[in-house]
Amino acid sequence: MELWYTEEHTPTVRFSIKVKKQLFGGKSPFQQVDVFDSEEFGRFFTLDGLMMLTEKDEFIYHEMIVHVPMATNPDVRRVLVIGGGDGGTVRELSRYKTIEKVDMVDIDEMVVKVCRELLPFTSNKLDDPRVTLYFEDGLKFVRTVEEKYDLIIVDSTDPFGPGEGLFTKEFYGNCCKILNDDGILVNQHENPYYDSYRASMRRAHRRIEDFFPICRVYQAHIPTYPSGHWLFGFASKKFDPLEIDAEAWNALGLETNYYNTDIHRGAFMLPNYVKRELELEN
Amino acid sequence: MELWYTEEHTPTVRFSIKVKKQLFGGKSPFQQVDVFDSEEFGRFFTLDGLMMLTEKDEFIYHEMIVHVPMATNPDVRRVLVIGGGDGGTVRELSRYKTIEKVDMVDIDEMVVKVCRELLPFTSNKLDDPRVTLYFEDGLKFVRTVEEKYDLIIVDSTDPFGPGEGLFTKEFYGNCCKILNDDGILVNQHENPYYDSYRASMRRAHRRIEDFFPICRVYQAHIPTYPSGHWLFGFASKKFDPLEIDAEAWNALGLETNYYNTDIHRGAFMLPNYVKRELELEN
Repeated sequence: MELWYTEEHTPTVRFSIKVKKQLFGGKSPFQQVDVFDSEEFGRFFTLDGLMMLTEKDEFIYHEMIVHVPMATNPDVRRVLVIGGGDGGTVRELSRYKTIEKVDMVDIDEMVVKVCRELLPFTSNKLDDPRVTLYFEDGLKFVRTVEEKYDLIIVDSTDPFGPGEGLFTKEFYGNCCKILNDDGILVNQHENPYYDSYRASMRRAHRRIEDFFPICRVYQAHIPTYPSGHWLFGFASKKFDPLEIDAEAWNALGLETNYYNTDIHRGAFMLPNYVKRELELEN
Repeated sequence: MELWYTEEHTPTVRFSIKVKKQLFGGKSPFQQVDVFDSEEFGRFFTLDGLMMLTEKDEFIYHEMIVHVPMATNPDVRRVLVIGGGDGGTVRELSRYKTIEKVDMVDIDEMVVKVCRELLPFTSNKLDDPRVTLYFEDGLKFVRTVEEKYDLIIVDSTDPFGPGEGLFTKEFYGNCCKILNDDGILVNQHENPYYDSYRASMRRAHRRIEDFFPICRVYQAHIPTYPSGHWLFGFASKKFDPLEIDAEAWNALGLETNYYNTDIHRGAFMLPNYVKRELELEN
Protein backbone atom coordinates (compact mmCIF):
# COMPACT_ATOMS: atom_id res chain seq x y z
CA MET A 1 0.00 0.00 0.00
CA GLU A 2 1.16 3.52 -0.79
CA LEU A 3 -0.14 6.66 0.88
CA TRP A 4 0.19 9.96 -0.99
CA TYR A 5 -0.70 13.47 0.15
CA THR A 6 -1.86 15.54 -2.83
CA GLU A 7 -2.42 19.27 -2.84
CA GLU A 8 -4.23 20.97 -5.70
CA HIS A 9 -2.23 24.08 -6.55
CA THR A 10 -4.91 24.78 -9.14
CA PRO A 11 -7.75 22.51 -10.28
CA THR A 12 -5.39 21.18 -12.99
CA VAL A 13 -2.03 21.21 -11.14
CA ARG A 14 -1.17 18.83 -8.32
CA PHE A 15 1.78 18.42 -5.97
CA SER A 16 2.06 15.02 -4.27
CA ILE A 17 4.21 13.70 -1.47
CA LYS A 18 4.55 10.07 -0.54
CA VAL A 19 3.60 9.70 3.10
CA LYS A 20 5.26 7.30 5.51
CA LYS A 21 2.60 7.72 8.14
CA GLN A 22 -0.18 10.04 9.23
CA LEU A 23 0.69 11.22 12.73
CA PHE A 24 -2.43 13.23 13.50
CA GLY A 25 -5.79 14.07 11.96
CA GLY A 26 -8.49 16.05 13.69
CA LYS A 27 -11.11 18.71 13.23
CA SER A 28 -10.95 21.81 15.39
CA PRO A 29 -13.83 24.30 15.54
CA PHE A 30 -12.01 26.20 12.79
CA GLN A 31 -10.33 23.78 10.42
CA GLN A 32 -9.05 20.32 9.61
CA VAL A 33 -5.60 19.75 11.16
CA ASP A 34 -3.27 17.01 9.87
CA VAL A 35 0.33 16.02 10.47
CA PHE A 36 2.20 13.53 8.28
CA ASP A 37 5.66 12.05 8.10
CA SER A 38 7.47 11.72 4.76
CA GLU A 39 10.81 10.65 3.42
CA GLU A 40 11.65 13.77 1.41
CA PHE A 41 10.35 16.50 3.70
CA GLY A 42 10.28 14.90 7.11
CA ARG A 43 7.21 15.83 9.10
CA PHE A 44 4.71 18.17 7.51
CA PHE A 45 1.60 19.91 8.71
CA THR A 46 -1.51 20.92 6.75
CA LEU A 47 -4.65 22.94 7.50
CA ASP A 48 -7.77 22.13 5.50
CA GLY A 49 -5.51 20.07 3.26
CA LEU A 50 -3.16 22.95 2.43
CA MET A 51 0.56 22.79 3.18
CA MET A 52 1.58 24.94 6.15
CA LEU A 53 5.12 23.74 6.70
CA THR A 54 7.56 20.89 6.23
CA GLU A 55 10.45 19.99 8.46
CA LYS A 56 12.82 20.28 5.49
CA ASP A 57 12.09 23.82 4.37
CA GLU A 58 10.16 25.65 7.10
CA PHE A 59 13.40 27.50 7.88
CA ILE A 60 13.01 29.51 4.68
CA TYR A 61 9.59 30.95 5.52
CA HIS A 62 10.35 31.55 9.19
CA GLU A 63 13.75 33.13 8.65
CA MET A 64 12.43 35.41 5.94
CA ILE A 65 9.33 36.54 7.85
CA VAL A 66 11.40 37.36 10.98
CA HIS A 67 14.94 38.41 10.06
CA VAL A 68 13.96 40.85 7.32
CA PRO A 69 12.08 43.15 9.73
CA MET A 70 14.52 42.49 12.59
CA ALA A 71 17.53 43.49 10.47
CA THR A 72 15.60 46.57 9.34
CA ASN A 73 15.00 47.71 12.91
CA PRO A 74 17.34 45.95 15.36
CA ASP A 75 15.75 47.94 18.16
CA VAL A 76 12.46 46.02 18.06
CA ARG A 77 11.48 45.10 21.62
CA ARG A 78 7.78 44.29 21.55
CA VAL A 79 6.34 41.96 18.94
CA LEU A 80 2.84 40.77 18.10
CA VAL A 81 2.50 37.57 16.08
CA ILE A 82 -0.90 36.90 14.54
CA GLY A 83 -1.35 33.23 13.64
CA GLY A 84 1.89 31.29 13.62
CA GLY A 85 0.54 28.49 15.83
CA ASP A 86 3.32 26.13 14.77
CA GLY A 87 5.77 28.29 16.70
CA GLY A 88 8.36 28.74 13.95
CA THR A 89 8.06 32.51 13.88
CA VAL A 90 8.35 32.71 17.67
CA ARG A 91 11.40 30.43 17.52
CA GLU A 92 13.24 32.82 15.21
CA LEU A 93 12.15 35.86 17.24
CA SER A 94 13.35 34.23 20.46
CA ARG A 95 16.92 34.28 19.15
CA TYR A 96 17.05 38.06 19.63
CA LYS A 97 18.09 38.87 23.17
CA THR A 98 16.89 42.44 22.72
CA ILE A 99 13.26 41.39 22.29
CA GLU A 100 11.41 41.84 25.57
CA LYS A 101 7.92 40.64 24.79
CA VAL A 102 6.17 38.49 22.19
CA ASP A 103 2.39 38.18 22.14
CA MET A 104 1.16 35.42 19.89
CA VAL A 105 -2.50 35.27 18.92
CA ASP A 106 -3.72 32.15 17.18
CA ILE A 107 -7.40 31.45 16.78
CA ASP A 108 -6.93 27.69 16.99
CA GLU A 109 -5.66 26.12 20.21
CA MET A 110 -5.63 22.68 18.61
CA VAL A 111 -2.95 23.82 16.16
CA VAL A 112 -0.65 24.87 18.97
CA LYS A 113 -1.34 21.72 20.95
CA VAL A 114 -0.65 19.43 18.01
CA CYS A 115 2.48 21.34 16.98
CA ARG A 116 3.83 21.30 20.52
CA GLU A 117 3.51 17.54 20.51
CA LEU A 118 4.51 16.61 16.97
CA LEU A 119 6.59 19.49 15.59
CA PRO A 120 9.09 20.28 18.36
CA PHE A 121 11.49 21.73 15.75
CA THR A 122 9.17 24.73 15.32
CA SER A 123 7.30 24.83 18.64
CA ASN A 124 10.23 24.45 21.03
CA LYS A 125 10.40 28.14 21.96
CA LEU A 126 6.75 28.70 22.74
CA ASP A 127 7.67 28.35 26.43
CA ASP A 128 10.14 31.21 26.28
CA PRO A 129 9.16 33.37 29.31
CA ARG A 130 8.88 36.43 27.06
CA VAL A 131 6.07 34.76 25.07
CA THR A 132 2.36 35.01 25.92
CA LEU A 133 -0.14 32.95 23.97
CA TYR A 134 -3.69 34.12 23.27
CA PHE A 135 -6.20 31.81 21.65
CA GLU A 136 -8.38 34.42 20.01
CA ASP A 137 -9.34 35.78 16.64
CA GLY A 138 -6.52 38.13 15.62
CA LEU A 139 -9.02 40.48 14.00
CA LYS A 140 -10.74 40.97 17.37
CA PHE A 141 -7.51 41.05 19.37
CA VAL A 142 -6.13 44.08 17.52
CA ARG A 143 -9.45 45.91 18.02
CA THR A 144 -9.16 46.05 21.76
CA VAL A 145 -5.56 45.42 22.86
CA GLU A 146 -4.04 48.34 24.70
CA GLU A 147 -0.40 47.37 24.22
CA LYS A 148 1.85 49.08 21.69
CA TYR A 149 4.20 47.05 19.50
CA ASP A 150 7.30 47.71 17.42
CA LEU A 151 6.61 44.85 15.03
CA ILE A 152 3.53 42.89 13.97
CA ILE A 153 4.03 39.67 12.01
CA VAL A 154 0.94 38.27 10.33
CA ASP A 155 1.81 34.61 9.91
CA SER A 156 -1.61 33.67 8.59
CA THR A 157 -3.31 31.13 6.38
CA ASP A 158 -4.87 32.08 3.05
CA PRO A 159 -7.20 35.05 2.48
CA PHE A 160 -10.26 32.84 2.88
CA GLY A 161 -11.49 30.63 5.74
CA PRO A 162 -10.30 31.41 9.29
CA GLY A 163 -7.61 33.83 8.04
CA GLU A 164 -9.92 35.97 5.93
CA GLY A 165 -10.29 38.83 8.41
CA LEU A 166 -6.51 39.29 8.47
CA PHE A 167 -6.56 40.78 4.97
CA THR A 168 -9.18 43.49 5.65
CA LYS A 169 -8.94 47.24 5.90
CA GLU A 170 -10.22 47.13 9.47
CA PHE A 171 -7.42 44.78 10.49
CA TYR A 172 -4.65 46.80 8.86
CA GLY A 173 -6.03 50.02 10.36
CA ASN A 174 -5.97 48.54 13.86
CA CYS A 175 -2.47 47.17 13.31
CA CYS A 176 -1.35 50.65 12.34
CA LYS A 177 -2.95 52.08 15.49
CA ILE A 178 -1.24 49.66 17.88
CA LEU A 179 2.18 50.04 16.27
CA ASN A 180 4.64 52.59 17.59
CA ASP A 181 5.70 55.50 15.38
CA ASP A 182 8.54 53.45 13.89
CA GLY A 183 6.49 50.26 13.70
CA ILE A 184 6.69 47.55 11.03
CA LEU A 185 4.01 45.16 9.77
CA VAL A 186 5.02 42.04 7.83
CA ASN A 187 2.54 39.59 6.36
CA GLN A 188 2.58 36.53 4.14
CA HIS A 189 1.50 37.64 0.69
CA GLU A 190 0.76 34.41 -1.23
CA ASN A 191 2.31 33.41 -4.56
CA PRO A 192 2.28 35.63 -7.64
CA TYR A 193 2.14 32.84 -10.22
CA TYR A 194 -1.23 31.12 -10.03
CA ASP A 195 -4.29 33.25 -10.56
CA SER A 196 -6.29 32.09 -7.56
CA TYR A 197 -5.32 34.63 -4.90
CA ARG A 198 -3.72 37.33 -6.97
CA ALA A 199 -6.71 39.65 -7.08
CA SER A 200 -7.24 39.35 -3.33
CA MET A 201 -3.54 40.02 -2.64
CA ARG A 202 -3.57 43.05 -4.90
CA ARG A 203 -6.57 44.36 -2.94
CA ALA A 204 -4.88 43.58 0.38
CA HIS A 205 -1.74 45.36 -0.76
CA ARG A 206 -3.78 48.46 -1.70
CA ARG A 207 -5.43 48.44 1.73
CA ILE A 208 -2.08 48.33 3.53
CA GLU A 209 -0.87 51.28 1.48
CA ASP A 210 -3.68 53.38 2.90
CA PHE A 211 -2.06 53.17 6.32
CA PHE A 212 1.70 52.91 5.86
CA PRO A 213 3.99 55.33 4.01
CA ILE A 214 6.52 52.60 3.11
CA CYS A 215 5.09 49.48 1.46
CA ARG A 216 7.23 46.91 -0.27
CA VAL A 217 7.02 43.28 -1.26
CA TYR A 218 9.80 40.71 -0.99
CA GLN A 219 10.12 37.13 -2.13
CA ALA A 220 11.63 33.78 -1.20
CA HIS A 221 12.05 30.35 -2.78
CA ILE A 222 9.80 27.98 -0.79
CA PRO A 223 9.64 24.70 -2.73
CA THR A 224 6.64 23.19 -0.91
CA TYR A 225 4.31 26.16 -1.40
CA PRO A 226 2.35 26.56 -4.65
CA SER A 227 4.74 27.64 -7.45
CA GLY A 228 7.66 27.74 -4.99
CA HIS A 229 7.68 31.53 -5.35
CA TRP A 230 6.43 33.15 -2.17
CA LEU A 231 5.83 36.80 -1.37
CA PHE A 232 5.83 38.77 1.88
CA GLY A 233 4.44 42.25 2.41
CA PHE A 234 6.55 44.78 4.29
CA ALA A 235 4.74 47.88 5.59
CA SER A 236 6.50 50.43 7.70
CA LYS A 237 5.97 53.81 9.30
CA LYS A 238 9.58 54.90 9.25
CA PHE A 239 12.22 52.29 8.35
CA ASP A 240 13.00 51.40 4.76
CA PRO A 241 14.01 47.72 4.54
CA LEU A 242 16.44 48.50 1.73
CA GLU A 243 18.51 50.59 4.11
CA ILE A 244 19.88 48.16 6.63
CA ASP A 245 23.01 48.09 8.72
CA ALA A 246 24.31 44.74 7.47
CA GLU A 247 27.35 44.86 9.72
CA ALA A 248 25.22 45.31 12.81
CA TRP A 249 23.03 42.35 11.95
CA ASN A 250 26.02 40.16 11.12
CA ALA A 251 27.61 41.12 14.44
CA LEU A 252 24.70 39.42 16.23
CA GLY A 253 26.20 36.11 15.12
CA LEU A 254 22.88 34.44 14.35
CA GLU A 255 23.37 31.34 12.23
CA THR A 256 20.82 31.07 9.45
CA ASN A 257 20.20 28.64 6.62
CA TYR A 258 18.47 30.92 4.13
CA TYR A 259 18.61 34.53 5.29
CA ASN A 260 21.66 36.71 4.96
CA THR A 261 21.98 40.45 4.55
CA ASP A 262 22.67 40.09 0.81
CA ILE A 263 19.56 38.07 0.15
CA HIS A 264 17.70 40.57 2.35
CA ARG A 265 18.34 43.16 -0.34
CA GLY A 266 18.02 40.75 -3.25
CA ALA A 267 14.61 39.59 -2.05
CA PHE A 268 13.12 43.02 -2.71
CA MET A 269 14.21 42.89 -6.36
CA LEU A 270 11.10 41.52 -8.04
CA PRO A 271 10.43 40.18 -11.52
CA ASN A 272 8.60 42.54 -13.87
CA TYR A 273 5.54 40.34 -14.07
CA VAL A 274 5.15 40.33 -10.28
CA LYS A 275 5.46 44.09 -10.09
CA ARG A 276 2.86 44.49 -12.81
CA GLU A 277 0.43 42.05 -11.25
CA LEU A 278 0.62 43.67 -7.85
CA GLU A 279 0.84 47.13 -9.43
CA LEU A 280 3.93 47.77 -7.37
CA GLU A 281 6.42 50.57 -7.56
CA ASN A 282 9.43 48.69 -6.18
CA MET B 1 -11.39 10.32 -19.17
CA GLU B 2 -8.65 12.44 -17.63
CA LEU B 3 -5.08 12.62 -18.88
CA TRP B 4 -2.38 13.74 -16.45
CA TYR B 5 1.33 14.32 -17.03
CA THR B 6 3.29 13.44 -13.91
CA GLU B 7 6.96 14.19 -13.30
CA GLU B 8 8.82 12.60 -10.43
CA HIS B 9 10.86 15.35 -8.80
CA THR B 10 12.19 12.67 -6.48
CA PRO B 11 10.98 9.08 -6.11
CA THR B 12 8.57 10.33 -3.41
CA VAL B 13 7.59 13.76 -4.80
CA ARG B 14 5.41 14.25 -7.87
CA PHE B 15 4.25 17.22 -9.89
CA SER B 16 1.22 16.63 -12.11
CA ILE B 17 -0.45 18.65 -14.82
CA LYS B 18 -3.82 17.88 -16.33
CA VAL B 19 -3.37 17.50 -20.07
CA LYS B 20 -5.91 18.65 -22.62
CA LYS B 21 -4.24 16.78 -25.46
CA GLN B 22 -0.94 15.20 -26.45
CA LEU B 23 0.24 17.03 -29.56
CA PHE B 24 3.32 14.96 -30.32
CA GLY B 25 5.12 11.88 -29.07
CA GLY B 26 8.16 10.37 -30.73
CA LYS B 27 11.52 8.78 -30.13
CA SER B 28 14.58 10.37 -31.69
CA PRO B 29 17.95 8.58 -31.77
CA PHE B 30 18.71 10.44 -28.52
CA GLN B 31 15.58 10.74 -26.42
CA GLN B 32 11.81 10.59 -26.09
CA VAL B 33 10.22 13.86 -27.28
CA ASP B 34 6.68 14.85 -26.21
CA VAL B 35 4.53 17.94 -26.53
CA PHE B 36 1.29 18.43 -24.63
CA ASP B 37 -1.35 21.10 -24.28
CA SER B 38 -2.72 22.07 -20.86
CA GLU B 39 -5.11 24.55 -19.35
CA GLU B 40 -2.77 26.05 -16.74
CA PHE B 41 0.53 26.18 -18.63
CA GLY B 42 -0.54 26.16 -22.28
CA ARG B 43 1.70 23.99 -24.43
CA PHE B 44 4.57 22.21 -22.76
CA PHE B 45 7.46 20.14 -23.99
CA THR B 46 9.29 17.27 -22.27
CA LEU B 47 12.38 15.18 -23.03
CA ASP B 48 12.54 11.68 -21.59
CA GLY B 49 9.53 12.67 -19.49
CA LEU B 50 11.23 15.69 -17.88
CA MET B 51 9.84 19.19 -18.21
CA MET B 52 11.80 21.39 -20.60
CA LEU B 53 9.47 24.35 -20.94
CA THR B 54 5.90 25.54 -20.68
CA GLU B 55 4.27 28.30 -22.69
CA LYS B 56 3.32 30.06 -19.44
CA ASP B 57 6.73 30.39 -17.82
CA GLU B 58 9.45 29.72 -20.41
CA PHE B 59 10.07 33.48 -20.44
CA ILE B 60 11.68 33.24 -17.01
CA TYR B 61 14.34 30.72 -17.98
CA HIS B 62 15.06 32.27 -21.37
CA GLU B 63 15.22 35.86 -20.16
CA MET B 64 17.48 34.94 -17.27
CA ILE B 65 19.88 32.82 -19.32
CA VAL B 66 20.27 35.55 -21.97
CA HIS B 67 19.84 39.02 -20.46
CA VAL B 68 22.12 38.46 -17.48
CA PRO B 69 25.22 37.93 -19.67
CA MET B 70 24.07 40.47 -22.28
CA ALA B 71 23.64 43.20 -19.68
CA THR B 72 27.04 42.28 -18.26
CA ASN B 73 28.74 42.76 -21.63
CA PRO B 74 26.55 44.74 -24.05
CA ASP B 75 29.30 44.44 -26.64
CA VAL B 76 28.72 40.72 -27.28
CA ARG B 77 28.65 40.13 -31.02
CA ARG B 78 29.25 36.44 -31.55
CA VAL B 79 27.31 33.85 -29.57
CA LEU B 80 27.38 30.06 -29.37
CA VAL B 81 24.30 28.30 -27.99
CA ILE B 82 24.75 24.66 -27.02
CA GLY B 83 21.43 22.83 -26.83
CA GLY B 84 18.44 25.15 -26.77
CA GLY B 85 16.62 23.33 -29.57
CA ASP B 86 13.29 24.90 -28.62
CA GLY B 87 14.64 28.25 -29.83
CA GLY B 88 13.76 30.32 -26.75
CA THR B 89 17.36 31.30 -26.06
CA VAL B 90 17.89 32.31 -29.68
CA ARG B 91 14.65 34.32 -29.58
CA GLU B 92 15.91 36.43 -26.67
CA LEU B 93 19.36 36.83 -28.28
CA SER B 94 17.80 37.94 -31.55
CA ARG B 95 16.40 41.01 -29.83
CA TYR B 96 19.89 42.52 -29.62
CA LYS B 97 20.69 44.38 -32.84
CA THR B 98 24.36 44.40 -31.93
CA ILE B 99 24.66 40.61 -32.11
CA GLU B 100 26.14 39.64 -35.48
CA LYS B 101 26.20 35.87 -35.33
CA VAL B 102 24.54 33.08 -33.37
CA ASP B 103 25.64 29.47 -33.84
CA MET B 104 23.27 26.99 -32.25
CA VAL B 105 24.36 23.39 -31.78
CA ASP B 106 21.70 20.88 -30.77
CA ILE B 107 22.36 17.17 -30.95
CA ASP B 108 18.74 16.37 -31.76
CA GLU B 109 17.22 17.57 -35.02
CA MET B 110 13.85 16.13 -34.07
CA VAL B 111 13.61 18.58 -31.15
CA VAL B 112 14.08 21.55 -33.43
CA LYS B 113 11.67 20.18 -36.01
CA VAL B 114 8.94 19.52 -33.44
CA CYS B 115 9.44 22.89 -31.72
CA ARG B 116 9.33 24.75 -35.03
CA GLU B 117 6.00 23.16 -35.72
CA LEU B 118 4.34 23.14 -32.29
CA LEU B 119 6.08 25.80 -30.20
CA PRO B 120 6.23 28.87 -32.46
CA PHE B 121 6.38 31.11 -29.37
CA THR B 122 9.94 29.92 -28.70
CA SER B 123 11.11 28.82 -32.16
CA ASN B 124 9.98 31.81 -34.20
CA LYS B 125 13.42 33.40 -34.44
CA LEU B 126 15.38 30.35 -35.55
CA ASP B 127 15.16 31.72 -39.10
CA ASP B 128 16.87 34.98 -38.18
CA PRO B 129 19.58 35.33 -40.85
CA ARG B 130 22.24 35.72 -38.15
CA VAL B 131 21.48 32.21 -36.84
CA THR B 132 23.17 29.03 -38.09
CA LEU B 133 21.93 25.66 -36.82
CA TYR B 134 24.23 22.67 -36.37
CA PHE B 135 22.82 19.27 -35.48
CA GLU B 136 25.83 17.85 -33.71
CA ASP B 137 27.06 16.85 -30.27
CA GLY B 138 28.07 20.10 -28.55
CA LEU B 139 30.94 18.30 -26.85
CA LYS B 140 32.43 17.46 -30.26
CA PHE B 141 31.56 20.83 -31.82
CA VAL B 142 33.65 22.81 -29.33
CA ARG B 143 36.61 20.44 -29.88
CA THR B 144 37.07 21.44 -33.49
CA VAL B 145 35.30 24.71 -34.22
CA GLU B 146 37.67 27.46 -35.32
CA GLU B 147 35.38 30.39 -34.58
CA LYS B 148 35.84 32.60 -31.55
CA TYR B 149 32.87 33.71 -29.48
CA ASP B 150 32.08 36.44 -26.97
CA LEU B 151 29.41 34.41 -25.20
CA ILE B 152 28.59 30.71 -24.88
CA ILE B 153 25.20 29.72 -23.47
CA VAL B 154 24.84 26.08 -22.44
CA ASP B 155 21.09 25.55 -22.57
CA SER B 156 21.31 21.85 -21.85
CA THR B 157 19.31 19.03 -20.35
CA ASP B 158 20.37 17.33 -17.12
CA PRO B 159 23.89 16.09 -16.33
CA PHE B 160 23.00 12.57 -17.47
CA GLY B 161 21.75 11.20 -20.80
CA PRO B 162 22.47 13.18 -23.99
CA GLY B 163 23.57 16.28 -22.02
CA GLU B 164 26.14 14.51 -19.85
CA GLY B 165 29.22 15.59 -21.84
CA LEU B 166 28.27 19.24 -21.35
CA PHE B 167 29.25 19.08 -17.67
CA THR B 168 32.78 17.71 -18.19
CA LYS B 169 36.18 19.27 -17.74
CA GLU B 170 36.99 18.67 -21.40
CA PHE B 171 33.90 20.62 -22.48
CA TYR B 172 34.58 23.59 -20.19
CA GLY B 173 38.25 23.67 -21.28
CA ASN B 174 37.27 23.84 -24.93
CA CYS B 175 34.65 26.51 -24.22
CA CYS B 176 37.34 28.56 -22.53
CA LYS B 177 39.62 28.13 -25.54
CA ILE B 178 37.05 29.30 -28.10
CA LEU B 179 35.97 32.30 -26.04
CA ASN B 180 37.58 35.68 -26.58
CA ASP B 181 39.62 37.26 -23.81
CA ASP B 182 36.52 38.91 -22.36
CA GLY B 183 34.29 35.89 -22.97
CA ILE B 184 31.40 34.69 -20.81
CA LEU B 185 30.01 31.18 -20.32
CA VAL B 186 26.53 30.72 -18.84
CA ASN B 187 24.99 27.33 -18.14
CA GLN B 188 21.89 25.93 -16.51
CA HIS B 189 22.89 24.71 -13.07
CA GLU B 190 19.96 22.58 -11.85
CA ASN B 191 18.07 23.09 -8.59
CA PRO B 192 19.75 23.28 -5.20
CA TYR B 193 16.92 21.74 -3.17
CA TYR B 194 16.56 18.08 -4.05
CA ASP B 195 19.59 15.88 -3.53
CA SER B 196 19.61 14.15 -6.91
CA TYR B 197 21.92 16.40 -8.94
CA ARG B 198 23.61 18.43 -6.24
CA ALA B 199 26.82 16.45 -6.10
CA SER B 200 27.18 16.52 -9.88
CA MET B 201 26.56 20.26 -10.00
CA ARG B 202 29.10 20.88 -7.26
CA ARG B 203 31.62 18.91 -9.31
CA ALA B 204 30.68 20.78 -12.50
CA HIS B 205 31.04 24.08 -10.70
CA ARG B 206 34.54 23.11 -9.48
CA ARG B 207 35.53 22.18 -13.04
CA ILE B 208 34.42 25.56 -14.41
CA GLU B 209 36.46 27.32 -11.72
CA ASP B 210 39.59 25.68 -13.11
CA PHE B 211 39.22 27.71 -16.29
CA PHE B 212 37.55 31.01 -15.43
CA PRO B 213 38.71 33.63 -12.92
CA ILE B 214 35.18 34.88 -12.22
CA CYS B 215 32.63 32.21 -11.32
CA ARG B 216 29.26 32.99 -9.82
CA VAL B 217 25.86 31.38 -9.51
CA TYR B 218 22.51 33.12 -9.90
CA GLN B 219 18.94 32.02 -9.37
CA ALA B 220 15.40 32.41 -10.68
CA HIS B 221 11.90 31.34 -9.69
CA ILE B 222 10.77 28.81 -12.32
CA PRO B 223 7.58 27.20 -11.00
CA THR B 224 7.48 24.23 -13.41
CA TYR B 225 11.03 23.01 -12.69
CA PRO B 226 11.71 20.77 -9.68
CA SER B 227 11.50 22.86 -6.48
CA GLY B 228 10.83 26.02 -8.50
CA HIS B 229 14.28 27.27 -7.50
CA TRP B 230 16.60 27.21 -10.47
CA LEU B 231 20.29 28.06 -10.68
CA PHE B 232 22.50 29.29 -13.51
CA GLY B 233 26.28 29.28 -13.59
CA PHE B 234 28.07 32.43 -14.73
CA ALA B 235 31.76 32.05 -15.68
CA SER B 236 33.72 34.93 -17.08
CA LYS B 237 37.23 35.86 -18.12
CA LYS B 238 36.91 39.58 -17.44
CA PHE B 239 33.44 40.96 -16.71
CA ASP B 240 31.91 40.74 -13.26
CA PRO B 241 28.12 40.37 -13.57
CA LEU B 242 27.62 42.37 -10.39
CA GLU B 243 29.06 45.43 -12.10
CA ILE B 244 26.64 46.30 -14.83
CA ASP B 245 25.67 49.55 -16.49
CA ALA B 246 21.96 49.39 -15.71
CA GLU B 247 21.22 52.63 -17.53
CA ALA B 248 22.80 51.36 -20.72
CA TRP B 249 20.74 48.17 -20.66
CA ASN B 250 17.53 50.03 -19.87
CA ALA B 251 18.25 52.41 -22.74
CA LEU B 252 17.95 49.46 -25.14
CA GLY B 253 14.23 49.53 -24.45
CA LEU B 254 13.79 45.74 -24.40
CA GLU B 255 10.49 44.77 -22.80
CA THR B 256 10.84 41.82 -20.44
CA ASN B 257 8.47 39.94 -18.19
CA TYR B 258 10.93 38.69 -15.57
CA TYR B 259 14.35 40.24 -16.06
CA ASN B 260 15.20 43.75 -14.99
CA THR B 261 18.48 45.26 -13.89
CA ASP B 262 17.46 45.12 -10.23
CA ILE B 263 16.65 41.43 -10.31
CA HIS B 264 19.90 40.95 -12.22
CA ARG B 265 21.73 41.96 -9.09
CA GLY B 266 19.27 40.34 -6.70
CA ALA B 267 19.59 36.99 -8.49
CA PHE B 268 23.22 36.68 -7.41
CA MET B 269 22.26 37.00 -3.74
CA LEU B 270 21.92 33.36 -2.72
CA PRO B 271 20.51 31.69 0.39
CA ASN B 272 23.07 30.40 2.87
CA TYR B 273 22.13 26.78 2.32
CA VAL B 274 22.72 27.08 -1.43
CA LYS B 275 26.10 28.67 -0.93
CA ARG B 276 27.08 25.95 1.49
CA GLU B 277 25.91 23.13 -0.76
CA LEU B 278 27.75 24.45 -3.77
CA GLU B 279 30.67 25.55 -1.59
CA LEU B 280 30.38 29.00 -3.11
CA GLU B 281 32.03 32.22 -2.14
CA ASN B 282 29.35 34.59 -3.48
